[in-house]
Amino acid sequence: MSAMLTLYYARGTCALASHIALEHTGADYAAVRIDFASQQQRSADYLRINPKGRVPTLLTERGKLTETPAILQYVAQRYPAAKLAPLDDPFELARMNAFNSYLCATVHVAHAHGRRGYRWSDDPAAIASMQKKVPQTMGECFELIEKEFFAGPWVLGERYSVSDMYLFTLAQWLEGDGVDVARFPKVAAHRQRMRDDPVVARVLAAEAA
Amino acid sequence: MSAMLTLYYARGTCALASHIALEHTGADYAAVRIDFASQQQRSADYLRINPKGRVPTLLTERGKLTETPAILQYVAQRYPAAKLAPLDDPFELARMNAFNSYLCATVHVAHAHGRRGYRWSDDPAAIASMQKKVPQTMGECFELIEKEFFAGPWVLGERYSVSDMYLFTLAQWLEGDGVDVARFPKVAAHRQRMRDDPVVARVLAAEAA
Repeated sequence: MSAMLTLYYARGTCALASHIALEHTGADYAAVRIDFASQQQRSADYLRINPKGRVPTLLTERGKLTETPAILQYVAQRYPAAKLAPLDDPFELARMNAFNSYLCATVHVAHAHGRRGYRWSDDPAAIASMQKKVPQTMGECFELIEKEFFAGPWVLGERYSVSDMYLFTLAQWLEGDGVDVARFPKVAAHRQRMRDDPVVARVLAAEAA
Repeated sequence: MSAMLTLYYARGTCALASHIALEHTGADYAAVRIDFASQQQRSADYLRINPKGRVPTLLTERGKLTETPAILQYVAQRYPAAKLAPLDDPFELARMNAFNSYLCATVHVAHAHGRRGYRWSDDPAAIASMQKKVPQTMGECFELIEKEFFAGPWVLGERYSVSDMYLFTLAQWLEGDGVDVARFPKVAAHRQRMRDDPVVARVLAAEAA
């Protein structure tokens, strides 16, 4: 019998956060890799699944879902026993979603200017100038996270949540973006703690296999 | 006695969506205008409220919240009688949040390259080239919304939700971004229907006053 849920992901992308969340629930799911190197996300088959041509996409028995913040809250709500979100407290849930939205709309976007500047300009010189600024913008984002938005020991404080999975996913990109993670001791310690989590290690191994 | 909730907004910004949501609930709230023309969002006073230097910020009795998708779901959860979100259905709620996340992280970001390109490049020629591409990128976003993500008569189908307020807010920007809204008949009709809503008209008048 096929799995109840199917996650489409690509290596090195933000889909890792949803992948970790699913693995954490113990849910019956399948993970299907989309190969960005061969532009599989722009293939007719995949565009039928996700017309944005992006990952993640989560197929459910009721239809498909996209966008990391939406998938993360959905997984947390669908598997409440995994306690992946403060579902009983709308204010805390909003803090979680505010953090996730900042990662999605500001931090991920800063990162994307290093690899996908063609989305916003057709001029090669402009695209090169965007790449040059990524270490600065990503550094500023993580400064703000370190100083203002990381309660500790987890993102939201005492409660572990999907925000930890999402922060971990984007923190994995820092070296590639020319930012020294040692500037952010709390983020660096959090990233190591996440890597040491057997669930996270299992997902990283599966994506690398 | 002071209001329970305070919304910080600026004219012509995405904070309009949260403003409409609050007005719709009948909640006791205050709306405080931040003047972007005089760079008030970068003032020390405002940065203490929101270190990102952005709007919206919602002050509550438990602390502050930021990011439009998070504030919209919070307002819907805090005032369930207003029926602003499919709170009883995690899948539909995820569809709502996926739509809102797309507006926040892709559509709003496309728009921002027309006015705030300095966020991603220091080169004036690069910033000009980003401005040039905005009619194309915003047009492509709204094509996808029109064809794929607008169920009708409301964004999610039969149920009115905060996604309608958010779509309306960004659809207001189309002409300024060099995109003819007539290319998108469903979005255009929706925008007019929203403008005709007395709640929306009241908020537009308050922000213009």
